[in-house]
Amino acid sequence: MTEIINRNVSQYRDELYRVIDAALDAATQFGEDCPVRLREAIRYSLLAPGKRLRPILVLTACELCGGDRQLAIPAACAVEMIHAYSLIHDDLPAMDNDDLRRGLPTCHKKFDESTAILAGDALLTLAFEMLGHLTPLELVGRCCRELAVAAGPCQLVGGQMDDIYRTNSHKPDNIQIVEHIHRRKTGALIRTSLRLGGLVAGASEQQQIALDEFGIYFGLAFQITDDLLDVLGDEQTVGKRLRKDTESNKWSYPRFLGVDGTKHEAERTLKLAEHSLDFFRNSNSANHIALETFYSMVKHLAERKK
Amino acid sequence: MTEIINRNVSQYRDELYRVIDAALDAATQFGEDCPVRLREAIRYSLLAPGKRLRPILVLTACELCGGDRQLAIPAACAVEMIHAYSLIHDDLPAMDNDDLRRGLPTCHKKFDESTAILAGDALLTLAFEMLGHLTPLELVGRCCRELAVAAGPCQLVGGQMDDIYRTNSHKPDNIQIVEHIHRRKTGALIRTSLRLGGLVAGASEQQQIALDEFGIYFGLAFQITDDLLDVLGDEQTVGKRLRKDTESNKWSYPRFLGVDGTKHEAERTLKLAEHSLDFFRNSNSANHIALETFYSMVKHLAERKK
Repeated sequence: MTEIINRNVSQYRDELYRVIDAALDAATQFGEDCPVRLREAIRYSLLAPGKRLRPILVLTACELCGGDRQLAIPAACAVEMIHAYSLIHDDLPAMDNDDLRRGLPTCHKKFDESTAILAGDALLTLAFEMLGHLTPLELVGRCCRELAVAAGPCQLVGGQMDDIYRTNSHKPDNIQIVEHIHRRKTGALIRTSLRLGGLVAGASEQQQIALDEFGIYFGLAFQITDDLLDVLGDEQTVGKRLRKDTESNKWSYPRFLGVDGTKHEAERTLKLAEHSLDFFRNSNSANHIALETFYSMVKHLAERKK
Repeated sequence: MTEIINRNVSQYRDELYRVIDAALDAATQFGEDCPVRLREAIRYSLLAPGKRLRPILVLTACELCGGDRQLAIPAACAVEMIHAYSLIHDDLPAMDNDDLRRGLPTCHKKFDESTAILAGDALLTLAFEMLGHLTPLELVGRCCRELAVAAGPCQLVGGQMDDIYRTNSHKPDNIQIVEHIHRRKTGALIRTSLRLGGLVAGASEQQQIALDEFGIYFGLAFQITDDLLDVLGDEQTVGKRLRKDTESNKWSYPRFLGVDGTKHEAERTLKLAEHSLDFFRNSNSANHIALETFYSMVKHLAERKK
């Protein structure tokens, strides 16, 4: 039985992945008003092999709440574009100065700095253009409000700013400060991905609350296990430079709690993420395969910490 | 009679300026989730003395079409934020590498490069958050669609990309290529400012067509006279480094048409801008002071070319 579910979940995720990549490809063809070099840089970064975690969350959340995932595709593309832009800008020499991303040269290494800055700007703007393809117009408005706040100065950009500027400063007084950075830098967009899926599905208030809770804990667990991966992972397998948190004295979980303490914290947060799905498990209307997919994503994060 | 109109127009513009600056100030207070340094950089660039041309266009267009300008303030803030972000990123060392802007050190000179990149990203995102304050939600959706396209890879960002990459290359074959860059880099946002004002006012299709036409010619005239200012202007008065088009071999109008030819082209375009206001002049419902303000803005551009 478990095996059948696993196979179905894995097929389902593959299917979503293909749908998302086809949509991202179609959304970045552009007319002749877009310079060729800019188009290439945008597509190079956006279409590079990746997990497509955020757009998968959008589509799965939509389907979990009884929505038609086809209608959520513009929102799925939007969050992946925001993610791709933030990676391009984070990798810049003035920021994290990284040469490798998803196993390939970073955008400014492959092209150059000004192209990378503009490709990031274009992707950020394009995310909102994608939202414009949603219908009806009211939904565009709702999603625009949601995404702009999550990607803005108090969330994603603010988290990145603190991550850069608190680097190399004294050890933080408590783990809450590390959590505060992660909640904004990584957590906000993950949480919003789930909420956008709910919005497209026309989810009930209770459904949105449950999605939101799942988003908070899943996002946190994602970052904690990502920090662990930086310490314990293998660079070849992961496809990006590791140990950089330690090298650059970043405020990561392991730095503050140690490896064992971080594993424990990851476990605790993953349990909370799992529990926040109870609402859907106890509901008759929840889409079965979508729910199993969320459970499997939680399990997958648990694997990372081993 | 002309004197009274001039005084009224000038009072009207001052009033709009104050309303806009108060709104921009209020919109960038932020809660404690926004890092202090990021907040300072955003406000430094956004609130620096400037013409506030684009937001004034939004409010005036709204009022010209019988709308309540108070309701258009979020849209006015949004276009100024897009403009401010594009200046911050354009000034970066990897781009135009400018030290002076509006008579003050550029953002990356006053702060640093990573702060300037993030302040630009934050302002771009904040523009869409501002649109979220419009009501009803349908209007948010409509304006989001409009602004995202104008600021995106086929318009503003694409124009900037071509402006950088065609610099120093061979002389273009014809003036259309220069126009194509300007139409996207500067023209699109000016045109959209007018259209957003019309959208908030619930303008008729005919009103929107007239606004759009005015936007096209006014935007073009703005860029042509700006190119002239770069050649003929006084650095002290203008408050930014001049002669840089010549220094960096930019594809400007004077480079292609010479100073006299550019003056002639400016005159031609300004006339077209003026004529596109005929629809409103012949309409009984058009707001008189708003219309006079547009005429005076055209006249002001004509002054620049002297």
